[in-house]
This record gives sequence, structure tokens and C-alpha cells, in this order.
Amino acid sequence: MTSAYQQLTHTFQRLARFSHLSAIAGWDMQTMMPPAGSQARGEALAELSVLQHSILTDAAIKPWLDAAEQESLDDVQRANLHEMRRAWQQAAILPASLVEAKSIAGSRCEHAWRQQRPANDWQGFATNLKEVVKLSRQEAEIRAQANGCSRYDALLDVFEPGMTSARLDELFGALKQWLPPLLQRIVEKQRQESVEQPVGPFAIESQRQLGLSIMQVLGFDFNAGRLDVSAHPFCGGVPEDVRITTRYNEKEFLSAMMGVIHETGHARYEQNLPKSWPGQPVALARSTAIHESQSLFMEMQLARSAECLQLILPQVIRHIGEGTALNANNFVRLNQRVKPGFIRVDADEVSYPTHVILRYEIERALIAGDIEVEDIPALWDEKMQRYLGIDTRGNYRDGCMQDIHWTDGAFGYFPTYTLGAMYAAQLFQAVKRALPDLTQLIATGDLQPIFSWLEQNIWQHGSRFSTRQLIENATGEDLNPEYFRRHLEQRYL
Amino acid sequence: MTSAYQQLTHTFQRLARFSHLSAIAGWDMQTMMPPAGSQARGEALAELSVLQHSILTDAAIKPWLDAAEQESLDDVQRANLHEMRRAWQQAAILPASLVEAKSIAGSRCEHAWRQQRPANDWQGFATNLKEVVKLSRQEAEIRAQANGCSRYDALLDVFEPGMTSARLDELFGALKQWLPPLLQRIVEKQRQESVEQPVGPFAIESQRQLGLSIMQVLGFDFNAGRLDVSAHPFCGGVPEDVRITTRYNEKEFLSAMMGVIHETGHARYEQNLPKSWPGQPVALARSTAIHESQSLFMEMQLARSAECLQLILPQVIRHIGEGTALNANNFVRLNQRVKPGFIRVDADEVSYPTHVILRYEIERALIAGDIEVEDIPALWDEKMQRYLGIDTRGNYRDGCMQDIHWTDGAFGYFPTYTLGAMYAAQLFQAVKRALPDLTQLIATGDLQPIFSWLEQNIWQHGSRFSTRQLIENATGEDLNPEYFRRHLEQRYL
Repeated sequence: MTSAYQQLTHTFQRLARFSHLSAIAGWDMQTMMPPAGSQARGEALAELSVLQHSILTDAAIKPWLDAAEQESLDDVQRANLHEMRRAWQQAAILPASLVEAKSIAGSRCEHAWRQQRPANDWQGFATNLKEVVKLSRQEAEIRAQANGCSRYDALLDVFEPGMTSARLDELFGALKQWLPPLLQRIVEKQRQESVEQPVGPFAIESQRQLGLSIMQVLGFDFNAGRLDVSAHPFCGGVPEDVRITTRYNEKEFLSAMMGVIHETGHARYEQNLPKSWPGQPVALARSTAIHESQSLFMEMQLARSAECLQLILPQVIRHIGEGTALNANNFVRLNQRVKPGFIRVDADEVSYPTHVILRYEIERALIAGDIEVEDIPALWDEKMQRYLGIDTRGNYRDGCMQDIHWTDGAFGYFPTYTLGAMYAAQLFQAVKRALPDLTQLIATGDLQPIFSWLEQNIWQHGSRFSTRQLIENATGEDLNPEYFRRHLEQRYL
Repeated sequence: MTSAYQQLTHTFQRLARFSHLSAIAGWDMQTMMPPAGSQARGEALAELSVLQHSILTDAAIKPWLDAAEQESLDDVQRANLHEMRRAWQQAAILPASLVEAKSIAGSRCEHAWRQQRPANDWQGFATNLKEVVKLSRQEAEIRAQANGCSRYDALLDVFEPGMTSARLDELFGALKQWLPPLLQRIVEKQRQESVEQPVGPFAIESQRQLGLSIMQVLGFDFNAGRLDVSAHPFCGGVPEDVRITTRYNEKEFLSAMMGVIHETGHARYEQNLPKSWPGQPVALARSTAIHESQSLFMEMQLARSAECLQLILPQVIRHIGEGTALNANNFVRLNQRVKPGFIRVDADEVSYPTHVILRYEIERALIAGDIEVEDIPALWDEKMQRYLGIDTRGNYRDGCMQDIHWTDGAFGYFPTYTLGAMYAAQLFQAVKRALPDLTQLIATGDLQPIFSWLEQNIWQHGSRFSTRQLIENATGEDLNPEYFRRHLEQRYL
């Protein structure tokens, strides 16, 4: 007789196969698809997503989940069952009408935003965003009732299981105290240093070859993945076939290079997820913040360290050509430059968290109903002034209209960027303890011990442990933001 | 109340959306996917195909088909209903166990063939092929009983609705009489002519640019399609987003160039299928042979004509560079060279039909049970000697193991190549009648009237008419192989 647990694994494997198609068709849409394919692709993906939702919320699932609880399962199976229930609950709890309404409102808002942002059209954008917020509040309310938590915490939990706004307030509250003055000191210090900018143009094919060669150094498995181009860089595909993207600018090559390194961090996590439980939720990445910790480990902790920058400099020179800006000292300064600005995605690692805290505070109040869409610009400006000393009045385009997240209602996502940065710092410190000669290893290009540590402590576990357990097992303690602070102080002061 | 016909259109639109995903993931597999993605992709596509089969053979479909017959439908709807019933019947008639067994045997045979062909391992190949033949005979038997026809005719009908082996015997019987002597005369005549081969290497990027520029001349819509590279050239994707491929060889550029032109013929048909019936079977291409007629119209009738070769020569020189081989006369001779050889896909249009007739005669006898797999090599050799004067004894690799079609049981497909060539010649003659200044139009690069004629007479009709009706409407008569004969005589004698 087939056990309830086996029925579930069969169902989730089926779902994973459909997710595979969705991931590849989604990647294609961003990288390969000509414009006229857009509508048919959207309809095909929507049809698939309706199918996936109906499989996951089929009436048989709940009884199987309940029956499987009583079956004899090992630890991994129990963790898998836990993840299955979570996936089922998240899908089943929302009425189909709300899911559809949110999807339509999100598409409309995002689609219009593409024109509204360059036009600085806040009024037009706000009209659409109100509908998204209204539906997101409804979603939050339903999830909150089921989880017995606040509305915002219920949305946060979708991206970062177990995280709460109480904990975020602790973590970000401390950060808000020490970060702005630290930032000022660093900017002050760097004002003394001269930095020479490399002068382009930099041929795109050379930049691509540079990216590929650094991916090689960072252990990307080209047998199981690719590098392509998209308007917004991402890491997609499936663990067996990871697709990362970047975008090139002929005037400046460092952004694309660091972008590739960042996505390679995501990719190595995906490529090294456990293979023993194919198609099962327990084999998936732990959470959004843990995923981001892997990309930031690679980019911020490893690649922007002076040792690693010196390690990759010869490759930069080989592909990009020599130049006075490409001496070791200047190359390090270029990649460790701190410069507060309007745009989150262009931010250095010191000012980045202020962008996130600002969004966290606004979106939490928005979902709670403490503020309305109309209140966003004034709050945005006030916080930008306070945290970064930047005036955004009337500049919606580079202010509260710069990101895509809110357009389709991904409230609760932003905090994971800074949680990722904190986890990355804590993990890097643990690697340092495990590998006392770490600096030497990086300088000589022997990065394998670092990757082995990540594989053993993070990658191979998938979602077997809770985030907290995973981090405690790996580093000996729960998330501790002090490592991030020390990292910034040591690198930049 | 929703009519049965509406229920059906809804179901077929859903199926079309899943086919969209299958087409894109299939294209990706041939063009983009790294090796390690293979197994997961195969499983994902198989899962999708199980789903499509279950939707198409759902118990509700048959009653809807029957009820819709009684509903008030216009001509297009009635044609659509006819195509729906055909699709349903083809899917529903086979037991799932046979479909699965054939899919497994086909994959095994094809997979092993990739190694067996270079190793010239006929014995190993024959063992796998026997299983495929056994299952194909079972499939043929079931379809034959349902259609009230012979086994082979039942398989033929899958690719070419309405075609029978009785009709093929007529068409090919005549061809078998006049083609071999004609071929000999042409080879004799061309022996007098000197032809200079262009000397490479030819950079792949230059070849690609040449292909793109010719696609532009031939009206390919780049807003709704792409050109990429794959081991075996094909035309894939969906009508809104057509993906054609080619393969490049640095030593020789004409094959890739003509390959691109051939696939562009397929692509223009797809890109110009009717848009008014989205996702409906009536909006799909008419048949395999009609599809091939469009690629051969573009490649053989149009592009290899002296006028068209002279039209594209300046582009060839622009991208490939000048050379004594690229004078007008020599360029025409290069592209009209007739040289009987072992390999079907490399064959010129004069010897090509003999390759097809040979396969047709063998596969028909095989499915009928008149011969067994062991008999193939001797028959192959006998026919190659008779039709082309070529000795294939012991050379399985370039003989009966050269093609991929039989490996997964696509018996009944081969004849469509030569039917396509015949349709193409007949259509081109009709275009000549409609456009008396055709030669002049081609010489001056004004190809739009030709494409408009194809659009009005073939492309826009999808599957609205039977193949016979379509051809009669377009050319005033049913398929008449005399046009093909006259075409060959006029071009080559």
C-alpha cells in the first residue's frame, strides 16, 4: 500500500517538474524571447500556475498531510513533511479570487510603472499601487489569522519563515543607531583618498569573458548552468541547470563583474542543493535571506576583500586591458568605495541597509494600515534625509518609485536583503575560525576549502533545518548582527 | 449556458498553452541547455506530456465532440471541430501502456544510436530497433482498425491526413521511372562544367550575420522569432515566437546559409498562421508535407533560382568577403550542383526523392510485416544501387543508420519530404501564373508579391481546408507531380 507520505512525495515531485518548466520559460522570457511572444507566454505561464495551484490545493492533500504525521518517518522526511504543509497552507489559505485579483492588479501596476517611472508620474503610479496595497492587506489579514500573528509578520513569513517584525526591530533598531555615524566616518575617511576611474569603452564580449573566467574561479559548474544577459540580473533555472544573468554597460565594467559574482553566489547554492530528495521541498534553498547570504558572501565578504580583488586583478587586466586605474591599490579602492546615493541597487554595502530599513518601516506601516499610499513620498524623503542626508522631494523616479517589489505586492521581501548581509558576515567569520589561514588561501587562489565549508554547512542541507538551526549549527549561535558591524568597521575604517 | 463547442475551444486553448511551454522548453533543450540539465528536463517534459494526454483523453471530450456536431457552427468552427476530433481520436485510441512503452523504446533506441551510428554497430542498433518496430506495428494495427485502412496508411495519416500508400505508389511510381535517367543526364551535363569551391575558413559570426540578413530579405519577423544554433537544424517555438536554428561549419558556408533559408520558409508559415482562432487546432499548419512545401518553396524554388542567387550574392560578398568563387555564374553553379551521395540531408533536390522512395518502400514493408529488421541492410543496398548507383554494403553508418526517424518510430514521415517538394513546385508554378513578371520581381528584390500570394493562398488558412482543397484552391488542381518534373528539367537540363 502506498503511504500518505509517498502520495505526497509523488505529488510534490510532479509539482517540481512543472516548476522546472515555469523556471525555464520564465528565464527565456527575460533573456531570449522576442517582444511579440510576450502575451502568449504570459498566458501559458498563467495556465501553468493555475494548474500548480490546483494540484497543491487538491482536496486529497490535507488528509495526506494529516495521515503522514502519524506515519513512521525519519528526520529528513519529517522536515520534508513540514515544508509540504507550509507550501500547502500558503497556497490553500487564499481564495482563488484574491490570488487572481492580486495577480491582475500586480501586472497592471508593474506594466504601467515601466512608463510611469521614467515619467516621474507618482499620481498615476499611486492609483495602481493603492489597489495592490488593498489586496495585499487582504492577503495579510487572511494569513495573519491563520498564523496567529500580525498582518505584516504574516507576509514576512512567506519569504523568511520564522522571522518576525519584533526580531527585525531589534536587529534593525541597533543598526539604525550605529550605521549612519559609521557611514559618515567612512565617507570622511575616503574623501582623503584619490581613486582613478578606469576609462572605457569596454567591449561587451571582453566583459563577458571576464565574467566567465571569474565564475570559473568561483567554482560555477558550467556543465549545469549558463551566463546570459537580461535587463534585471537574476539567478533562475533549476538546480540541475542554473541560469544566471547580468547586464553590460560599455562605459563601466565593474558593476557587471560584481553582478556576475553576486549571482554566482546564488548559483553555487542552487547547484549544490541536496540531490538525494529530487523534487521535494526539503531539497530547496532554505529561505530568501539565506539565499541572499550566499550571494553576498561571494560578492561582499569574499570578492571585495583586498586579497580576492588582487587575486582576480590579473584576469581583469587580461580581458579588459591594462591601465593606470588597474593597479592593485586603486582596484581595491574602486571596489570598496562608499558613496551614499538615491538608488538601492547601486548602493555599496555600508549604505545599503539604510535603503532596506527605510522600505521596511514604510511597508510595515502600510500593511498595518497606519499609513496610506499618499503618505509614502513624504516619509521616504524624511527617512532619506535622516539616514543618508539625501533630498528626494519631487524625485519619485529615484525615490519611492525606483523598485519593482511593491508593484506586484511583494511586501515583506525587502528585509531579507539586509538579513542576508548579516548572515553573510556571520558565516564568513565562522569560515575564518575554521580556516585560520583564510587570507593566505584567498591570496593564492585556493578557494576550495571555503566552498567546501559552505557546502557542508549550508548548501547540502537544503531546507532540512530551520534557518535558526542551520545558522546555529554552522556558526555556533543565532543571527548576531555584531559580525556585520565588525566587518564594516574592519574593512572601511 | 456554455455550448459543447465552447467547452472544447476552452480545452484546446488550455492544451495550446501547455504546448507553448513544451515547445519553448524543447527548443531550449536543443539550443541552450547545458548537459547536466538533460534528465530533469526530460522528466519535466514527460510529465507535461502525460498531462496533455490526460486532458485530451478526458471522459468529457467525446460527449462534447458528439454534442458539438449538433450545434450551429460556421465553416471555420466546423473545420475546427473536425481537427479536434482528429486530435482526440489519435490520442484516445492508443492504450496508455503502449504510448509509454513506445516512448521508452524510442528513447532507448535513439540514445544508443548516437554511439552506435559512429561505431557502425548495426547488430546493436537492430536489437533496439526491433522493439520499436514491434510497438509501431501494434500502434499501426490499432489505428488501422479504427480508420478502416492498412497499417502503414494509418501511420501515414498521422503526419499527412488524407494521404494513402495507393496515392503514394502512383506519385512515386512515376518518379521512379523518370528520375534516375534524368539524374544521370544532369550529372553527365554538369561534368562538363567547372565549379570553383570558395575557400575558408568562414568565421561563424560572419555566417550568422549573412543568415540574419537573408532572413530579413525573406521577410522573417524578428519581432516574433530568433535564429540560434543546434546540432540538428529545426523550426520550433510557437507562431507568436518562432525559433529557427542552423549549424555552422567554418570550412563551408553554403549549407548553413541554405539551411537558414529552408527554416525561414517553415518560419514564415508559422508566423503567418491565422491569429483569429488563438489556441485552436484549425489555426495550426495544415500538414507535415504542406509545411515542408513552404521550406522547399523558399529554399529550392525561390532561393536556388539563378535570379534569387544573384539577388543575395552581394550580401554573401558583404559578409563572407570577395573571392573568385563568388562570381555570379559560379555562385549559381555552386548552389545548383547535383551530386548523388550516401546522405539524405546533404542531397540536392534531384537525388533527394530517391532517398525518400527507398525509405518509403522499406518502412511500408516493415510495418506491413513483409520484411523484418534484419532484411533492411540488403534492401537498402539494392535500392541505393538501383536508384543512385551507390554501394552501401557494410556501411551502415552512412546507409540505413543515417537517419533519426525510425529510432523513435516515426514511420510514415519520410514521404512528406518529397510530397513537400512536389507541392512546392506546383505552388511556384501557380505564383508564376499569378505574377507574370516573377523573374523580374525576384531579380530586383521585390519579393513581397510572392509572400502575399503565399499568405493569401496557404498561410492564412491554417487547417481550415483539407490539404487537397487547399491545393486545389491555390493552384486549380490536386497534387500533380508533373510540375516537379518540369521544374527539375528546366533548371538542370
